[in-house]
This record gives sequence, structure tokens and C-alpha cells, in this order.
Amino acid sequence: MENIKFLLYNVHNIESLFTHEKFSEYNREAIDMMMDASKDYADRELHPYLEEMDRQGCELENGEVTVHPHIPKIFADIGEAGWINATRAFEVGGMQLPHMAHHAGGFIYSAANNSAVGYPMLTAGAASLIVSFGAEELFEKFVKKMWAGKWQGTMALTEPDAGSSLSDITTSAKRQADGTFKITGQKIFISGGDYKEAENVIHLMLARIEDAPKGAKGISLFVVPKKRIEENGSLTPNDVTTAGLFHKMGQRGYVTTHLIMGEQEDCIGHLVGAENSGLKYMFQMMNSARIEVGLTGASIASAAYYASLEYAQERVQGRLPSAKDPTSPPTSILNHADVRRMLFFQKAVVEGSLSLILECSKLIDLISVSNGKEKEECHLLLELLTPIVKTYPTEMGIQSVSMGLQCLGGYGFCVDFPLEQFHRDVRITALYEGTTGIQSLDLLGRKMLMQDGAAAKLLFGEISKTLNEANDFERSTRHATSLFSVLTDYQQVLSRLVGLAMKGQTDEFLADANLFMELSGIIVIGWQWIKQGIAAEKGLKSGAGDGAYFESKIKTMDYYFAYELPKTKGLIQRLMDDEIVTIKDDQEYLV
Amino acid sequence: MENIKFLLYNVHNIESLFTHEKFSEYNREAIDMMMDASKDYADRELHPYLEEMDRQGCELENGEVTVHPHIPKIFADIGEAGWINATRAFEVGGMQLPHMAHHAGGFIYSAANNSAVGYPMLTAGAASLIVSFGAEELFEKFVKKMWAGKWQGTMALTEPDAGSSLSDITTSAKRQADGTFKITGQKIFISGGDYKEAENVIHLMLARIEDAPKGAKGISLFVVPKKRIEENGSLTPNDVTTAGLFHKMGQRGYVTTHLIMGEQEDCIGHLVGAENSGLKYMFQMMNSARIEVGLTGASIASAAYYASLEYAQERVQGRLPSAKDPTSPPTSILNHADVRRMLFFQKAVVEGSLSLILECSKLIDLISVSNGKEKEECHLLLELLTPIVKTYPTEMGIQSVSMGLQCLGGYGFCVDFPLEQFHRDVRITALYEGTTGIQSLDLLGRKMLMQDGAAAKLLFGEISKTLNEANDFERSTRHATSLFSVLTDYQQVLSRLVGLAMKGQTDEFLADANLFMELSGIIVIGWQWIKQGIAAEKGLKSGAGDGAYFESKIKTMDYYFAYELPKTKGLIQRLMDDEIVTIKDDQEYLV
Repeated sequence: MENIKFLLYNVHNIESLFTHEKFSEYNREAIDMMMDASKDYADRELHPYLEEMDRQGCELENGEVTVHPHIPKIFADIGEAGWINATRAFEVGGMQLPHMAHHAGGFIYSAANNSAVGYPMLTAGAASLIVSFGAEELFEKFVKKMWAGKWQGTMALTEPDAGSSLSDITTSAKRQADGTFKITGQKIFISGGDYKEAENVIHLMLARIEDAPKGAKGISLFVVPKKRIEENGSLTPNDVTTAGLFHKMGQRGYVTTHLIMGEQEDCIGHLVGAENSGLKYMFQMMNSARIEVGLTGASIASAAYYASLEYAQERVQGRLPSAKDPTSPPTSILNHADVRRMLFFQKAVVEGSLSLILECSKLIDLISVSNGKEKEECHLLLELLTPIVKTYPTEMGIQSVSMGLQCLGGYGFCVDFPLEQFHRDVRITALYEGTTGIQSLDLLGRKMLMQDGAAAKLLFGEISKTLNEANDFERSTRHATSLFSVLTDYQQVLSRLVGLAMKGQTDEFLADANLFMELSGIIVIGWQWIKQGIAAEKGLKSGAGDGAYFESKIKTMDYYFAYELPKTKGLIQRLMDDEIVTIKDDQEYLV
Repeated sequence: MENIKFLLYNVHNIESLFTHEKFSEYNREAIDMMMDASKDYADRELHPYLEEMDRQGCELENGEVTVHPHIPKIFADIGEAGWINATRAFEVGGMQLPHMAHHAGGFIYSAANNSAVGYPMLTAGAASLIVSFGAEELFEKFVKKMWAGKWQGTMALTEPDAGSSLSDITTSAKRQADGTFKITGQKIFISGGDYKEAENVIHLMLARIEDAPKGAKGISLFVVPKKRIEENGSLTPNDVTTAGLFHKMGQRGYVTTHLIMGEQEDCIGHLVGAENSGLKYMFQMMNSARIEVGLTGASIASAAYYASLEYAQERVQGRLPSAKDPTSPPTSILNHADVRRMLFFQKAVVEGSLSLILECSKLIDLISVSNGKEKEECHLLLELLTPIVKTYPTEMGIQSVSMGLQCLGGYGFCVDFPLEQFHRDVRITALYEGTTGIQSLDLLGRKMLMQDGAAAKLLFGEISKTLNEANDFERSTRHATSLFSVLTDYQQVLSRLVGLAMKGQTDEFLADANLFMELSGIIVIGWQWIKQGIAAEKGLKSGAGDGAYFESKIKTMDYYFAYELPKTKGLIQRLMDDEIVTIKDDQEYLV
């Protein structure tokens, strides 16, 4: 909680948002209360079911999907509390809550129970798509029930033969006389896709209208409900069948379905917005979902960090290397340098990630209250940061949880401690909502080139601003100097790679996109750590607040720059190297 | 199989062992037959039960432990085939098989079913301890049944309050008039510790004799059977109770028990060798078990590699960046550079690890047939390499399996594919038999200092020999040059750290032992890849053998030096840095 408040107030200055008309009803006390209420709810209704939801999983029997019985209650609670549409305008029943606060609250929920919170989070995203692009009629028909926590929302993109390659989807939509469409096809990996307690499930689904152009340009977005709403308001089946569930290693409380539409040729879909614009619309939802997946990764890593810290505090074992006398009393493992290294690593990853998530949330908020150049710049920066905020907290979150597990020794591998579940849960975050490979192609192949590199220039500008500010802060400035030097190398890497793109060597340009992403993540999180270091130094100077907490921030920044930043060295060497082994040539070497 | 044969014959020249009297009964044909038989058995009796053993797990009910019903059969089969004591002398019923071949066969078994193979592997290690240090009477009484695959063997070290810190164990042994001891205490995490089909379970257990000195110098080794052997040969209970099972994330077919000895004050143990020498003896078993855990890590990663390679070959999706036409047919994902990178990573880790394992196996074999200085040198080198061969294949094996899982996208997270199980199984290898932290302290704090750094000098000499040999091989020589340069930096790192030790700054010396281990691993595996590169170039020059296979080895070496070796840069920078954040000072920053 202390960390969330430090990030909201000291680092990212959420209070600056309250000067805008849109957020003028909020103040620090209101946000504090909201965070405390989220924690209270999480402690009471979410965390106690974490393990049970994992052990119980989800089942499909006689066509009915069963999830843990507490899930519908959580979904309804969160809906009734106004949380699902909290960021929406007052006029439509929302609370005009800044995304910063919404994401901070979501982080608390997700750290307590990452499976349960998926249901309302996904519903919020699905409803937003209808709000942004759908007709008023669709809003009335579907969105209100979704916001109320009564109808589940989903995003239905993936198909058996088109995983990461959305342009190849084949689900088809046939025009009907009444303006609706008949949908036929299959979707897989649909989270929250069906469960018997949900009154209805509203799929935001990509499909191809019969005469649409091939590829990405021929994809449209539809609302496809599990049950149709008849004139009299009653609900009748809409020929959407759950053909099976995916049984997963983790997030076992979060149901994942395989759907078949139109087996009886009687599945009705409603077009959202214009024909053939579906992929563009869906990217709105995907972009916010990507931030939320980053949030999920960081929140699981956060829960794992605190669990392993608690264990390390309590577990007494061994002696320091400098105290070899076997008769001296053993020490808490928290005092062993290697355990401390693993804990600092986790703290650096978790708090660095959450800081980046809130940086992005603030950009969303600023977009909603700004105009012209400022709005455009926030938008560009957010576009650039989105694949990074999806990837660093998930890839590093996976490593972070594994470090947490390692702190417990053999117990970490046993089901009596939560680390093994977190280890299983967190692994999906690098897969869903676009794998790390896809995010990396997006970052290097699309976002870095966008508007002649305008977004990249903005990012460099923002980082430089922070580095300049660090000059006034004694303990942050040396790290700013290190980061500046890496940033210079990074710019060289980027111009080398862009040079390949210019010459049309697209395969070479993108071959190491994943490593470019890794490098970008370390730099961007380094930037976030300088921001935190500056805020902590300011806090110490002001004399207000918890001095020991500020010191812990500075020490973690020291850790980050001593242990994490050096990892850029090898990545830069690799990315400056012309030798690319991974592009397929005439012979196959992988045997 | 091709890889195993390449490593045995082309790289590590197992045939050179056959010139020694001890191994003179063997030739290439015999080894080939043995490998083929191992694969045949693994395909028929091990692999088909991999998933079932995981799903079924192990249970304790009414004091009886149930494991998968196929496990006793596998244990008996492997015993009857003479595999458990295969490396022992002819006189005692062994086959005098080189450890190289024994480990290669074990790798095949373990890749097929890593849970099942634990039972005979552990029994072999436990029996070896009795053979090496126990009285003839113990040998007759226990070992023969263990070798025959009738009685399970275990190593019982860990206690609830002494995990990694063996000097703190409290299990006690009280002298009896007849020369036996009464054992009282608890042991946890005992693999293979109990199951109802085992006629008997023979624990090789560390305990403290009542009046023994404190600390590591007061620990003795005992044979503590589950059942006593009466004069008439019948078996009666020996007051060893299974208090519980550990329910684990992976290796769920491999039972892990919590044992209580002497609840009725009636648990008899037999001293092995001299009093208070237990830890020294146990290290023999631990050293070979550490190699075997490395082997387990590499074997699971190997199975994961082939599973993900097979998926990548079959799965068609997306297009290369250079072929953006959406109407062009999609390609096998094996052709995507990022997927190829993940596969090359796995291949480099798996084959590099196995090469190091066989390097160590050969040292064990050479120790058994050499004398004087040669024997001493092999011994020193093996001591130094043991923590590395435990750690690189397990830590990198964990990463490698995770990469394999990533290749499958969302399917990798589902139980329908074996990757998720491998991901769960492999995680333990960095924990048991000494965590990575413990191995790292052993490497830097003990092995590097041993005999004034004699072992380190030997290693540098061996690596230099290989680098010099690479001068004659066009495609390996450039990588040898890179490795030489890193080796020079590594020596500087080592002398900086040893300098700290000399000054008595023990905590600073060892604080980053884990990162020193990581660096050592990359260098040592680089050495193994140069060895493989040279062997492949020799193969190509000779014109004999599979040219395409040799090319695949050279390409994987190219990958290793282009993508893995650069990781040393950041580690070296870190290890040359005086700033250590992880040593505890007066304030606590981890909150």
C-alpha cells in the first residue's frame, strides 16, 4: 500500500490530474479511501479464495460450465460497486475515475486473486469497445448489464488456425435482411467465455463479412451474445456452444473456452461500427488489455515478493560467511547476501513495473483531458510504451516469481506455500494478449518507425527530462549518468536497425526484435527508477513522510543500476552485431 | 541419439577409455547396442507413463504410501538389467561400465520419464556409499538387494530446521551394546523415502552421535533401514514412520517423504565407516548426485526441446516480415526468426550441458584408471566442475524449458501438450541436491580457493588447450578468440574476488557468488561448444558421418557465441564493481 501511494502521489503526481475539470471531484483523501477500500475487499473476498479456485479449477459437464461458486459473487460485487465502469463519464453512470487510480485498485485486486479479477477486467474492456464504436442501441442493449456485473464480456479473436496471425481468421458473418449478421466459425482461448451463473456472455468477436477483402483489411467487429434478447426482454440461446475448456497449468480459476458459433446456422451477431474496421477497433481494447496483462504480471510478482520476503524474515538458517563458528546461533535467511539479492531483484522488478504501468495510465488520463499537440504526443508515447508495459512486467515477472520461489528452497516447490501457484499463474502473462514475440515485432517493426520515429524521439525526450532533473539530486545523479550512456548506445542500436529497414532488409531488421524489446525494457524501467529515486530524495529533503521508506527506494534504485542495468551491455553487443544466425537459409540446422 | 553418439565418440572419445584394462571389454558396438537398448526401454516402459505419473501423483493413506503402480516394475526391471550397479567392478557383480555410458543411458531414461528414473538412480548412489565406506557386513546385508532393484535406497540429509545448513542437523544416534545405534529425529524432503511395494527402504542418513563435537565435524553416516533384517532373514519394522508426503508442483511421480525415526525409541541404525566422518562420506554421494541432477535438468530440457521443435515444424502460422502479402500462404512457425532463436537457445543449452556432463563422467572414469598426478588432477578438475555441472544445466534448463513452452503459444500453457509438465518438473532441479546459492558458495568459496587455486589453474589450462586446438579449425577459431578474451576478463574477476578473501572480506568476497557461477557456466559451456565445433569440423573434413548433422553443430556453436557469450559482458562489469548492495547493514531496506 505504501508503495502504491508513493507511486501515485510522490512519483506520478496523480493530484495534477485533479486540476482538470473531468477529475475535479477527486482529491487525495478520496483516492486514499478508494485504495483502502480495494485492499479491504481484496483481503476479505478475493485472497481467501486464491488457492481454492486453483485447486478446484473449472469444469464442463453436460454442456454447462462450472467455475468456482465465489466468482459470480465477486463479479456482481465489483459491478455493483461501480468498479467495472469507474473510468467512464458521469453521464453514462460512471465515476470519471482516473485510470491511474483504476489501475492501482486493479493491481490490489489482482495481487490478491489474479484469476477472479479477470472476469470484471475483461468485461470492462469489452464494454468499452461497444461504448467507443457501437451504436446507441447496442449500448442500451448490452453495456448496462455488463457494467452492473450481470453479463460477462469477452474478447473473441483467436482461432484454431490463426493464433498470433489475426489477418488469417475465417469466422464468417453473413448479412441478414434486418441488418444483423449470421455468424459461423470457431474461437479458441476465450477467457471468461462461458459459465452457468453468468446470465449472459457478450462476446466482442472478430469475423469476416462474406464479401470482405482478404487479410487484415477485411475484418469486422461484432457483438455476439451467448443469449439473444427477445422483444419481451427474455433471453434465448444464440447458437454459441462451448465445445471444450482449456485445462491450464495456472490461472485455473479463470475459465478458458473453445466456442463454436452457428452449428445450427442460427447465431446472430451485431456489427460494431463500420464494416472492415474491426481490427482497428479491437486494437483499442487490446491496447488497454495489454496494459492490464502487464499489471497482472506485476501484481502476481508483487504477491510472490511479499510471500518470499515474509518467509525470509521468519526462516532461520545458516550463518554469514564471515561468521563460520558453528556454535554461533544461525541467522534469519533474510541476512544472506544471495537471498537479499533475490529479494532486491523482485522488489526492483515489481516496483519498477508498477511505476511504468502508472506512467501509462496517466497518459491515458491526459489524452482524455488534453487537445492538439499535447494529446497527440501523449497518444504517441502511449502507443510506444504499450508493448513494453505488456512485456517487461510479464517476462521479468516470470523471473521474479521464480526468484521468490527459490528463496523458499524446497518449500517453494511444495503446494503448502503460494509460490508454486504464482509460478504457474504468472507464466501465461507472456503468452496471452499477444506473445512477447508479437509485442517485440510491434515495438520495433511498427511503433519505432511510426511517423518517422516521432514516438521514439518523444520517449528519448521524456527520459532526458528525467535525467536532467536528476542532476539536482545527489544520490540519483550518478545513476542518471549511467543511464544516459546506455541511452546513447541504444540510439545507435536503433539507427543501425532502422538502417536495415530502410534498405529493405526486413527480416534482418526484425530478427532480434525480442532482444531489442529486452533492452528497451531495462532502459525504460531504469528511467522509472530514476523517477522513484528523485521522488525519494525529495521526500527525504522535505522531512515529511516515512524516511526509512524513502531510503528503501534509493537502495533499490542502487540495486537496479548495479545489477540490472549492466545486462544492457551484452544486449547492445548482440544488437550491434551483423551476424544473424536465426534467419532461415537453405539448410535446416534445427534437428 | 545422434547427439549422444556424437558426444560420446566424436567429442569426448569414449573409445580412449577402452585401452585401459578396466574397460577393455567394451567397444563402440557394445556401447551403441547399450544406448539403443536404453532408448528402446525408455520408449516402451518409461515415456508412456510420464503424464500418468504426474496426474496420479503419490498418496499417503493409513500409513501406506502409494506411488504409480508402474514404478516398482521399472525399478525391478532396471535392477535386473544390471543398470543400478553397472559401473561397479565385475567381482561384486557389476559391469565395469564407464560412467560416460552410464550417464548417457541415464540421460535417455530421464528424458523419457524424469520421475521414474529417480528411484533407481538414487538407489545406485546410496548403495555406492555403503560400498565405499561401509563394512563388508553392511554390503552383504543391504547392497545386493538394492542393486537387484528390490530395496529402495535414499539419502536422508535435510531436517526441518536445517535445510541447506547441514552442520545444524540434530537427528541423534545413541550407542547400543551390540555396536548399533538408536536413531531419533526427523528428516524432510526424502525422495523415494517410502512406498508400499518396496520390500525395504534403505536410508543413508546423517545423524549426530550423542557425545559428538558440534557443527560439521560431529556428523556421522548411518544405514537406517525401514525394516530390520532379523537373524532368520525376515523383515520387521524399524520404527521409521512416514509422517507425511510433500505435494509438489512437479516431479509428482517421484515421492517425497517426511520421516520420523524413533517415535517408539526403537529405530536401529548401522554406522558407516568411522564416527564423525559422515559429512565427508556423504559428499561422495552428493557429488555424483549433483552431476545426476544436472543430467536431470538437461534431460528434461532436451525432451522439451524436441517437443517444441516438433510443434514448430507442424504448426503453420503467419508470414515472414519480408512477405507481407496477406494472400500468400502462411509459413511453418519454424521459419520465424524469433522461434528459431528460441529453438537454437534450447539446442545450445541442452547439447552444451550434456557435453559438460560427459566431460565430468569421463573424469570419474579416468580417476578410476589413473594414478599419481594424473589422478589428482582429474580429481581436482572434477571437484571444480561439479557445482557448475549441477547449476548450468538446471538454471539454464529451467529457462530452456520456458522457451520451449513459449514456442507453443497458448497451447504451451495447456495440459494437452507436455511442455507445461516439463516446466513444472524442471523447476526443482535448481533446488534439490544443494540450491544454486549453495553451489555458488561451493564454487567460489571452496573450489576456487582449493590448494591455492590449483583447480582453477587446471581448468584454465584445459580450456586453453581446446582454444589452441581450435586454431587449426577455420570455423571454430574465431569463437575461440572471443572465448579467450572473456577468459582473460574472467581471470581478472577471480583475482579481484580472491583479493577480497585474502583481506578477510569474506562477506564481500561471496556476496555475488551466484553471478560468478552464472559467468563460469557460460564460459565452461562455451568451451564445450568449441570442443563440439572442432569435432564437427573434423567430421566434415573426414567425409565420414552425417555432414548435415555436423553443420547443425557448427551453426549452434555460431548461435552460442553470437547470442550467449555476450551475456558475460554485463556479469563481468557487475563482478568488477565494488558496490555491493546486498550485504546487510544497520537498516532494513526490504519492505
